[in-house]
Amino acid sequence: MPRNAFYAQSGGVTAVINASAAALIAACQAQPAQIGRIFAGRNGILGALREQLYDAGALDAEALAQLRNAPGGVFGSCRVKLKSLDADAARYQRLLEVFAAHDIGYFFYNGGNDSADTCLKIAQLAEQQGYPLTAIHIPKTVDNDLPHTDCCPGFGSVAKYTAIAIREAALDVASMAETSTKVFILETMGRHAGWIAAAAGLAGDGEQAAPHLILLPEVAFERAAFLAAVRATVARVGYCVIAASEGLRDGGGAFLADSGGRDAFGHAQLGGVAPQLAELIRAELGYKVHWAVADYLQRSARHVASATDLEQAEAVARAAVDFALAGQHGVMPAIRRLADAPYRWRIDAVPLTQIANVERTVPAEFIRQDGLHITDAARRYLQPLIAGEAWPAYRDGLPDYRLPSLRSVPACLPPFLA
Amino acid sequence: MPRNAFYAQSGGVTAVINASAAALIAACQAQPAQIGRIFAGRNGILGALREQLYDAGALDAEALAQLRNAPGGVFGSCRVKLKSLDADAARYQRLLEVFAAHDIGYFFYNGGNDSADTCLKIAQLAEQQGYPLTAIHIPKTVDNDLPHTDCCPGFGSVAKYTAIAIREAALDVASMAETSTKVFILETMGRHAGWIAAAAGLAGDGEQAAPHLILLPEVAFERAAFLAAVRATVARVGYCVIAASEGLRDGGGAFLADSGGRDAFGHAQLGGVAPQLAELIRAELGYKVHWAVADYLQRSARHVASATDLEQAEAVARAAVDFALAGQHGVMPAIRRLADAPYRWRIDAVPLTQIANVERTVPAEFIRQDGLHITDAARRYLQPLIAGEAWPAYRDGLPDYRLPSLRSVPACLPPFLA
Repeated sequence: MPRNAFYAQSGGVTAVINASAAALIAACQAQPAQIGRIFAGRNGILGALREQLYDAGALDAEALAQLRNAPGGVFGSCRVKLKSLDADAARYQRLLEVFAAHDIGYFFYNGGNDSADTCLKIAQLAEQQGYPLTAIHIPKTVDNDLPHTDCCPGFGSVAKYTAIAIREAALDVASMAETSTKVFILETMGRHAGWIAAAAGLAGDGEQAAPHLILLPEVAFERAAFLAAVRATVARVGYCVIAASEGLRDGGGAFLADSGGRDAFGHAQLGGVAPQLAELIRAELGYKVHWAVADYLQRSARHVASATDLEQAEAVARAAVDFALAGQHGVMPAIRRLADAPYRWRIDAVPLTQIANVERTVPAEFIRQDGLHITDAARRYLQPLIAGEAWPAYRDGLPDYRLPSLRSVPACLPPFLA
Repeated sequence: MPRNAFYAQSGGVTAVINASAAALIAACQAQPAQIGRIFAGRNGILGALREQLYDAGALDAEALAQLRNAPGGVFGSCRVKLKSLDADAARYQRLLEVFAAHDIGYFFYNGGNDSADTCLKIAQLAEQQGYPLTAIHIPKTVDNDLPHTDCCPGFGSVAKYTAIAIREAALDVASMAETSTKVFILETMGRHAGWIAAAAGLAGDGEQAAPHLILLPEVAFERAAFLAAVRATVARVGYCVIAASEGLRDGGGAFLADSGGRDAFGHAQLGGVAPQLAELIRAELGYKVHWAVADYLQRSARHVASATDLEQAEAVARAAVDFALAGQHGVMPAIRRLADAPYRWRIDAVPLTQIANVERTVPAEFIRQDGLHITDAARRYLQPLIAGEAWPAYRDGLPDYRLPSLRSVPACLPPFLA
């Protein structure tokens, strides 16, 4: 007898997470002997806790094609982190009850670090309680900080966005530098890992090319060295273009832009490194400075998605179904790089025990010795991830994103206050 | 005997000003009987004052094709405003000397409001002094604030960028709103005219669609009404997406984000409306808020240029040459709209006396009665301007912008301290 599947999106969404969803749903639909209905959680794991399920299996090929090309997370995502099995026992219990009520035998969780941890815990609990469940984590995060995978779906597209933005803005600054703006700063996402800022380095190569400086959270911010580098760049090039990670920290480990707020995962809510750096440069060097903060624009920029990223987002989802049907449990489909150029990769299963709560930051060999740029090794790593264009359809001058309409599945359990 | 032409780019650059340059150069090259050499000023009018000229006429078809597709201003632009003919007599005199030294009979100035004024003054001076000069102003400004033209080349592309950014970011916010960000603010350029923020309105239509609120400098910011609208939107939709012009002003006319600095034109240097609004919403309504400031990313976004805008940028440049050769003097090629849908337009010559220093802001009939969104009339006006895609070529995952190498023309006059 086929059992049912449950899929949920977790944490920050990306330009291609819906492509993972569409590929997973199609792959499940193709296995009717083993997978019956396909449910999706409304707003991630909250959907399971609240028994708010969508009938994702009802989406037809046209709806899935729409889904593949729309940014955001169509089923809704959430920033809700489950604690340990003991501390959050009631919620874990509820999850298994909802799974049992809907005969869910496959749990696909599409997220980053925190979600891998949740997925692992659910896998362990099901085993402990003898509930037959195959739990698979599907990687997704613009932060690119999951270990044991060449990259994380979502990252290639934000990397491409960032490099394009820097390349274009640098041409603007170059035109005006003599009588106007001398320094331009683009603030990128990246709380603890500087992958997105590092990717800005793909915009140009060589001493004169923008970005001239890249500020990573992996390198403690040193005010004097930074200001000296800005001054030297303006003297040499005429202007200075900087990519700065939101997670930039000083020598004491304090975020430069810590607003004091915390999100539901307990992470500091950041924002505002660029204006802070701008003020510093204005005050100390007297240059006219412009700055941009791309924020959600970067991770939702489906209009410049990387075709490679899109392909990988679909591939990990299909592999998740393959692994599940092969009886693999508590694993994540991980991308293994076989060659840089031309880029070749395959997908392996990695146990979640090796993934959960491990954060992969930009390694030392990818960071230039002075800490202010990337190395050739970093370029070799990053370059293939932004390759290829995957334009969405346009209508009336704008990307024609259409979200399929979703049908809710009636709840059969008493309500649960999630 | 053919006389020579001088072309310069002025003020903030756009995604398509180089397309105007390329079209103008090609149009001049096509008239060897009337136009001899084609010079371009290095860094705008400064190039004429300093006698720093490029040999633009030497660019071949391949170079012009590259130029057509690169954002920024290849010859360099500047923010230098000449004062009145009396107050800046020495500089105006120098301009005519440089023109005479290089037998320049055609002056093409590619800019916005301030440049139209400079172009007019030079035209008047040449007439006064009996120097035979045909001066034509070619419109360009992302601010879209020149009068007597349907729109300004550069605007259609930034309008398209802004609407795409809002549409994509809104899908992101919608996915996460229940447990995370409830309000997203995109700050757009626009000091006195809210055209760019207004264009964000093309991202969606109807009560539920983003952007939910549009804040224009034409409407005095009212804190209480704004906060009430944000709260009502979150209650109705679940989240609220806002486009806010950098030039937002309170009832007393003070910029919300006035940093106190001034640029060379005496304009206030703005930036930071979005973080200010975010802080206000957080403090008063308690919502989690994200914000983005696109800054130069918006006006350099050649990767999503509007094909209509690109076509118009080329058309006004070609018309400038036509007008010059027809003996028209002190005029600007202006776009006249003949029909909304399908969009039809032609180019007329408008005297610079009607253009210089006149600023066209968003008219009342384009602003919803409550001042917080645009009307259907505004949509009818804006829609055709973003129509059509004009992708640049890509290489290694990024737009392959190549700038032609430029040859300098030897100076023959003594140096002048511009």
